Amino acid sequence: MNAIRGIGFRLAGSGRALPRSLVPSTDIDARIGAEAGWTEANFGIATRHYAQPDETSSMLGAQAGAVALADADWNAEDLDVLIAACGVMEQPIPGTAPLIQRRLGIGGGGIAAFDVNATCLSFLVALDTMLMGMALGKWRRGLIVSSDIASAALDYGSPEASAIFGDGAAAMAIEAGGPSRMLAMRLSTFGDGADLCRLEAGGTRLRPHDDIEGFLAVSRFRMDGPGLFSATARRFPPFLKRLLADSDMPIGAIDTIIPHQASAAALEHLKRSVPDGHARTVDIFRDHGNQIATGMPHTLHVARTSGRTPPGSHSLLIGTSAGVSLGGAVIRW
Amino acid sequence: MNAIRGIGFRLAGSGRALPRSLVPSTDIDARIGAEAGWTEANFGIATRHYAQPDETSSMLGAQAGAVALADADWNAEDLDVLIAACGVMEQPIPGTAPLIQRRLGIGGGGIAAFDVNATCLSFLVALDTMLMGMALGKWRRGLIVSSDIASAALDYGSPEASAIFGDGAAAMAIEAGGPSRMLAMRLSTFGDGADLCRLEAGGTRLRPHDDIEGFLAVSRFRMDGPGLFSATARRFPPFLKRLLADSDMPIGAIDTIIPHQASAAALEHLKRSVPDGHARTVDIFRDHGNQIATGMPHTLHVARTSGRTPPGSHSLLIGTSAGVSLGGAVIRW
Repeated sequence: MNAIRGIGFRLAGSGRALPRSLVPSTDIDARIGAEAGWTEANFGIATRHYAQPDETSSMLGAQAGAVALADADWNAEDLDVLIAACGVMEQPIPGTAPLIQRRLGIGGGGIAAFDVNATCLSFLVALDTMLMGMALGKWRRGLIVSSDIASAALDYGSPEASAIFGDGAAAMAIEAGGPSRMLAMRLSTFGDGADLCRLEAGGTRLRPHDDIEGFLAVSRFRMDGPGLFSATARRFPPFLKRLLADSDMPIGAIDTIIPHQASAAALEHLKRSVPDGHARTVDIFRDHGNQIATGMPHTLHVARTSGRTPPGSHSLLIGTSAGVSLGGAVIRW
Repeated sequence: MNAIRGIGFRLAGSGRALPRSLVPSTDIDARIGAEAGWTEANFGIATRHYAQPDETSSMLGAQAGAVALADADWNAEDLDVLIAACGVMEQPIPGTAPLIQRRLGIGGGGIAAFDVNATCLSFLVALDTMLMGMALGKWRRGLIVSSDIASAALDYGSPEASAIFGDGAAAMAIEAGGPSRMLAMRLSTFGDGADLCRLEAGGTRLRPHDDIEGFLAVSRFRMDGPGLFSATARRFPPFLKRLLADSDMPIGAIDTIIPHQASAAALEHLKRSVPDGHARTVDIFRDHGNQIATGMPHTLHVARTSGRTPPGSHSLLIGTSAGVSLGGAVIRW
């Protein structure tokens, strides 16, 4: 990681976009047939946004991207690369990056536009990929866009796999050169847990024309919460230890923890796992829920715009995803 | 690109996997109601393989990966990273990389496993990503797997968007250090052409539960062949010129052209666009058709195993994809 460590970058701008509809948890209570207050009491989420059919992944992604570009004082034409880092694509072909590129008005520009996917950790992989390219002189200005519409495939028969999710997009405008450094990044995948979080319908395996009933039966997100916890919790301490060792930073030197907002329980577990975890962790779960790949960059956007990533400070980006994977990065701003 | 140019890699092994069923074009003739010989005469394809429902993207991908690992004389446990570079994922969550990791028997290993997507050019983006990571000391041994099951979503009412496709997987085992160099790589995306090649059903935009008829109506691949040709053909000469300039290699120094196998017409256009194009281009289209993201690494596998990539020789990897994108790389072996 030392080669990356030696190369500076600048987070020049950030943005987010939220669908028009704010959905309070009492709406979810009604939907799942629980008494008012049950969802918030059980899952620690008060509100989230749901996209309407006209609010697509690429539309929200382009909105967030435009905010990030304006924040950076860049034009879309200044970009060399656009990486879409979504949990689920808008449609199978083409990827979401070309769709966002078109909506940003630079669909004739010929920049590199592609997608990366590590479900909820897609942003982390995209950031690593972009910084590698910048370290090697490949790109000068880039945009990473995460956008997810979880509400498109929720099963309200399974409250723990539905009530906690929300929709939205977040984007980061990143420039080569500058004061910031990614000191370490790790992604650690355990495919043995691939069935713990899954959405099966929508790829090459299940063919809706041949068996529409079978297709619809698995066309909503399913999650084995206890299994997921068991697969990730025991692996978290050694993962974090190794990530911090790679960064040559002790946990005490981390000023701000910027997690994927998996669930209130996962965030609480994280906060208890590290000293001063409650004070150092940026938590937007109550208002937004788990926004899949958008969670981490949205939280980074909130941290940045609320003054929690001042120059010279250190942040830990950390999370888990379907796969299952653990991922994290240590950044000096 | 100079930083990448300075770092050596070795293509340590390669492999492919094909579904059991070989489908002659006379079967396609019968399916589309044409007289025997029509498909082959019109599209230049004699046979292709189609996956049966039990032959999934990850299964074929793991088969190809195992062949590549054996060819490299590596164990799966030796890998630091696995990148899935498919055109369409096996299922939306999780990505195809964790599914392949599990099938390779290393699903408990905790290596980095993620997906990249640029439709038919996914392999090129994955190769670039992997070599960047190796150049920066991040990974030592990696596996790239492309696997696509085009036959899952073909519309035989549109012969030009169905008859030419085939299924399969290909994999490359790549090691940091060694004699080979990627001298240049370019990806150039024009999202204005995003509608020219599309598969709309299967992501977050169309919700099968809300409108199953609308979902099914766009759940097969659609392609505007003339539009695609017009969007890419005029951009190809300047793209190739710039790629070669980046590599500091004249076209005459390219020994072997390894294209994505888009169509017989596209291959013929390519061969006519460069001097000695017919002799230098590796063409496997007649036997395999357009295998989406698998096309380029499968062609590389054939080139390699037939002695067309000897040490010191130069190859041009080149292709177009939905997006639309043009992509290419120059490699010195």
